[in-house]
Amino acid sequence: MKDIQVGILQSNPTIGDIQGNYEDIINALDKADKQNADILLTPELSLIGYPPMDILRRDTLYEVQDEKLDKIKKYTEEVDVAVVVGFCRRDSRGIYNSAVVFNNGNTLTSYDKVLLPTYDVFDGHRYFETGNDVCIFELNNQKIALTICEDAWYDVDVMDTKRHKFNPFSRIKEYDTDLILNLSASPYRINKNSERIDLFREHSINTSTPVVFCNQVGGNDELVFDGNSFMVNENEYIKQLSSFQEDMQVLDIGDNNENYQVNTSTQVQEMNSAICLGIEDYFEKTGFDKAIVGMSGGIDSTIATVLSVQALGADNVIGVSLPSDVTSQQSIDDAKIVAENLGIDFEIIDIAGMVNQVVTDFDDESDYSMEGLALENIQARIRGDILMSLSNTIGALVITPDNKSESAIGYCTLYGDTVGAIAPLGDCYKRHVYELAEYHNSIESVIPQKIISKEPTAELKEDQVDSDEMSEYETLDTVLNEYVENRKTPKEITIDSQTEVNNIISRIHGAEFKRNQSPLPIRVTKKDFGRGWRYPIAADYSFLK
Amino acid sequence: MKDIQVGILQSNPTIGDIQGNYEDIINALDKADKQNADILLTPELSLIGYPPMDILRRDTLYEVQDEKLDKIKKYTEEVDVAVVVGFCRRDSRGIYNSAVVFNNGNTLTSYDKVLLPTYDVFDGHRYFETGNDVCIFELNNQKIALTICEDAWYDVDVMDTKRHKFNPFSRIKEYDTDLILNLSASPYRINKNSERIDLFREHSINTSTPVVFCNQVGGNDELVFDGNSFMVNENEYIKQLSSFQEDMQVLDIGDNNENYQVNTSTQVQEMNSAICLGIEDYFEKTGFDKAIVGMSGGIDSTIATVLSVQALGADNVIGVSLPSDVTSQQSIDDAKIVAENLGIDFEIIDIAGMVNQVVTDFDDESDYSMEGLALENIQARIRGDILMSLSNTIGALVITPDNKSESAIGYCTLYGDTVGAIAPLGDCYKRHVYELAEYHNSIESVIPQKIISKEPTAELKEDQVDSDEMSEYETLDTVLNEYVENRKTPKEITIDSQTEVNNIISRIHGAEFKRNQSPLPIRVTKKDFGRGWRYPIAADYSFLK
Repeated sequence: MKDIQVGILQSNPTIGDIQGNYEDIINALDKADKQNADILLTPELSLIGYPPMDILRRDTLYEVQDEKLDKIKKYTEEVDVAVVVGFCRRDSRGIYNSAVVFNNGNTLTSYDKVLLPTYDVFDGHRYFETGNDVCIFELNNQKIALTICEDAWYDVDVMDTKRHKFNPFSRIKEYDTDLILNLSASPYRINKNSERIDLFREHSINTSTPVVFCNQVGGNDELVFDGNSFMVNENEYIKQLSSFQEDMQVLDIGDNNENYQVNTSTQVQEMNSAICLGIEDYFEKTGFDKAIVGMSGGIDSTIATVLSVQALGADNVIGVSLPSDVTSQQSIDDAKIVAENLGIDFEIIDIAGMVNQVVTDFDDESDYSMEGLALENIQARIRGDILMSLSNTIGALVITPDNKSESAIGYCTLYGDTVGAIAPLGDCYKRHVYELAEYHNSIESVIPQKIISKEPTAELKEDQVDSDEMSEYETLDTVLNEYVENRKTPKEITIDSQTEVNNIISRIHGAEFKRNQSPLPIRVTKKDFGRGWRYPIAADYSFLK
Repeated sequence: MKDIQVGILQSNPTIGDIQGNYEDIINALDKADKQNADILLTPELSLIGYPPMDILRRDTLYEVQDEKLDKIKKYTEEVDVAVVVGFCRRDSRGIYNSAVVFNNGNTLTSYDKVLLPTYDVFDGHRYFETGNDVCIFELNNQKIALTICEDAWYDVDVMDTKRHKFNPFSRIKEYDTDLILNLSASPYRINKNSERIDLFREHSINTSTPVVFCNQVGGNDELVFDGNSFMVNENEYIKQLSSFQEDMQVLDIGDNNENYQVNTSTQVQEMNSAICLGIEDYFEKTGFDKAIVGMSGGIDSTIATVLSVQALGADNVIGVSLPSDVTSQQSIDDAKIVAENLGIDFEIIDIAGMVNQVVTDFDDESDYSMEGLALENIQARIRGDILMSLSNTIGALVITPDNKSESAIGYCTLYGDTVGAIAPLGDCYKRHVYELAEYHNSIESVIPQKIISKEPTAELKEDQVDSDEMSEYETLDTVLNEYVENRKTPKEITIDSQTEVNNIISRIHGAEFKRNQSPLPIRVTKKDFGRGWRYPIAADYSFLK
C-alpha cells in the first residue's frame, strides 16, 4: 500500500449557489493544503449542488460554472494539493455528469459518469449523455480511478431500475489501481449507510484497492443527504466522516492503525436526524427562520412540533391550537403541555365561531346545506386558512403534520391539514411516528404518555376514531410497505383479508389527486410519495387485483 | 404503388383500463374486416393507454395485458385482417415499448421502440429498454416497416432533448419498403398538427413510401392527444382522420384521387378543442359529471366557465359568485350575465360575513392582527373553502381558473384561487384567454364586452389592479414565452428593461412552491407547468442574470 493523503469535503451545497459552493471548495483546498493532503475530493456536481433538475437546461448555468471552474484550476497553482470537482460538462452532443481533476494549475483528467440512475427520484437520462469508459489517472506515482455515485451501484438491487449494462468497477479492476475515488450525492433512506459500507467494502475487496466515498450532506427539498463519507480498505480499515453534518477531513490511505470507525446510530436516531436536517435546510435554503405548527394534541402534530423545534430552535417555532366545537379540552391541554415542555410560543385560536359563521352563511345563502364530509372538512380547511394567515402575517412557513399512512390512502383534508411548505412526517408510517415519540421521550420527557397511548382521531366529528374509517394502522402499514416500497402484487401481500388489501390499494390510487397537490414529504424510506412516485390521476386502477 | 387497405383506430383509451381498451380493438377489428382492410393500426401502447407512468412498474399489469394480447391474437383467426397492437413487452433485461402484428392467429412480428423520449413530460428511459433495430415485415406481398412515435422524430428540434443517435427512417430507407406505419401517442400543443404533417411528408418523400401515422386521442391528466391521424404519400396525397375525437377509418393506400384532405382549424379553435377535451376526459376518467366554478366576473373564471360548459354541458356546471366587502356589484352582475347566457345554475354566496368573523376572531384570539397580504389572501381562501364545501356536498369537481401568466409568477393565492381538480387555462397566457373570449363571442355572444375590456384585477382590496403588482401582461407574456418555452437566457430576452426580465424570472422560480401544490394545467404550449417542469424549490436562482 502506497501512502497518499486524501481530503474529503463533505459539503452542503445550495443548488444553484455556484458562488457559495465555489467558496466551500476553495476554503477546503486551503485546509487540505495545511493538512498536507495530496488530493481533495468533493461530492458529485459539487459546484452546482444535487439534484439540480431542470436548472441544467439553463445556458446561463454553464457560463457561471465554467468561470468558477477556471478559478479553482488557477487556485491549484497556489496550493500543493490536487482537487476533484464535480461539474456538468457540455459538448456538441449534450451534457455529462462529470468530474475534473486540477493540479498545479493544470487539468489532469476529466471523467464522465457512465451509469446514470433513471428511476425513482432520479432522472439521469433526462439530462445526461453516458460516459464512454472508466477513468484512471496518475498523481504522485499513484494510479487512481475516478467514479461518480451510481457507477458503484451496478448489479445492486436498486428499486424500480432496469439493469445497468456495464460494470465500471470490474473494468477498473483490470488496471490494478492504487486508489478508487467516488464522488457521490447519495440520499439517505433507512439502512442506506450500512448498505453503502457493505457495497464499497466489497468493491475494495474485489479490486484489492482502497476506496474513498465522498458524499454530499444536507437537505434539498424532499431529499436529505446524510454525508457519512468514508474510506474503506478491504476488511482491514474503515474510517468515516460525520453523519448529517458538514465535515472535512484528510485521511491517510496507508494508515491501518484504527481499524474500524463507522457511525453507529439506531434506525430511529438516523430518521430523526434526517428529518431535522431536512427541515433545517428547507428553511435555510428558502430564506425562512420561523415555523408554524397546528397542534391538535394528537401524536402526528406533536412529533412534527418536536422535530421542528430540534431543527429550528424553540424561539423559531409557534404552536397553534385551533379547537372547534368537537375538539375535546383534553386535546387542547395536551397540545399546551407539549408546547410548554418545548418552551415554544403557543396560541389558542378558537375556530368554532368561524366555522359556525361559514356553515350558517353557506346554508342560508346557497341551495345546499353543509353536513357530513363537508362539515368535517370545513373545520380542517378553516384551520388551514388560519395557519396560512399566520404565515402571511409573521413571514413564517407552515409545517404539514400528515404522516405517510394517511397520505397514502388520502385520509386527510386537501387544503386543510395538508397545507404547509414541507411534510416532515410525510414519509413516516404511523409506527415510525410512535418510534420517534418514544425516542424523544427517552432523551427528555416532552411528550405526555396519554398523547402516545390515546386512540388516533381526526377529531372532525363527535367520537370519531381513525380506525372506524380505515384499516388499523398496523395492517395498513404492512400493506403499504409491501405495495409501495417492495412493489408486491396484491396477491403477494398476505394479510388476513384479500379484500382489505384491494381496498387499501384502491384508496392509494384514489388519492393521487390529493398527493399531487400536497407538500413534499421528507424522504426516509426507499419509496416516498414525492417526485419519484409518478402515477396518473385519471386512470383505471381496477386491474390491480 | 401497390394496393393495401389500412384501418386506423384513433382510440381514446383510459390508462389502465385494459379490458375497455381491448374491447375497442376487437370492435375496430370487426369494423375493419367489414370494410375489407388488410391491416388495422392502433396507437402506441394501445392496450394500456398512454402515458401509463409508474403503472408500468406493477407486475399485475403484465398478467392482465398478456391475457388480452392472447385473445386478440386468437381473434385474428376469425377476421380477415391483421392487427398491430401497442403493448409493453417484458423480458429478462427489462421492458420495451413495443408493437406486435397478429394475423390469422399467428404472431407475424414484434418490434421494440428505438428512440425513447426522455425530456419534458416524457420519461422513456425511466421505464424502457431501447430496441435494437428497425422492423420490416411482409403482409400480402407488401414490405411494411413498423415504427413507434418518437422513432419518427430523430433530428427534429424537440425541446429539452439531447440528440438521438440513430435514425430509424434512414435505416428503413435501405429496405425499399412499400409502406411505413407509425403507432403514436403524440400530445397536442399549438401547431403540432402541421408540424407532424410536414415531418411525415418529408419521411414519405425521403423514403419514397407512403406513411401512416396513427395517433391516440383524448385527455389524460395534463396531456391532450389530438388524434389527427393521417396517411401521407409524398406530395401526392394526404388524408386525415378527425381531430380531438375518436375515429376509425380504412384508407386505400393506392388511392390518389382526393389529393389533399387535412384538418384546418385556427390556432384558437384548436386550443379550445384541446382544453374542452381535456376537461371532458378528466371528468369522464375520474368518474365525475359536475363542475363548480367560482365566477369572479373577471375574464379568467368567465372563460373557465364557458369551456366547462362546452365540455360538460350546461346542466353539469354550477357557477358561484362569492362576493366579499371589496367586490363590486358590477363583478357580481357580470358573472350573473355570463351564467344566464350559458344557462347554468348560478349561486351567490356572500363571504363578507364569514371573512369578517374569521378576521375578528383571529384578531381577538391571537397575538396578531390580520391585515395586508393576509387580509387579501383570506378572502381567496374562504372562497376556496366554500367551493370545496360545495364539491363535497354535491360530489362535483372544482375548476381552477388560474392562467399560465399568473401561475408563472405566483400571482395567485395558494389554497385560494388555486383550489380545484384541474386548471383548464393553466397553460394559457393571458393573451390566449382573451383570444378564447373573442373566439367564443364570434360564435355566440356569451361574454359581455365589459368583461373583456375591463382592467384585470384580483379584487382582494379596494381599487386593486393587477398591473400595479406585476408587469403588464403584454410584457410578462413575452418574457414567459422566451424564458419558459424557448429557454432563452435572461440576456437574450430583449424588452426595454433588463431589470424587469430579471424580476420576472426571479418571481417564476420564487413560485415553484406554489406550482408544486397546484392542480395540473391542461397543456397547450410546448412547455407547461405540469409534470415536465422540474425545478427545485429550495435553490438559489440568482445566478440566472
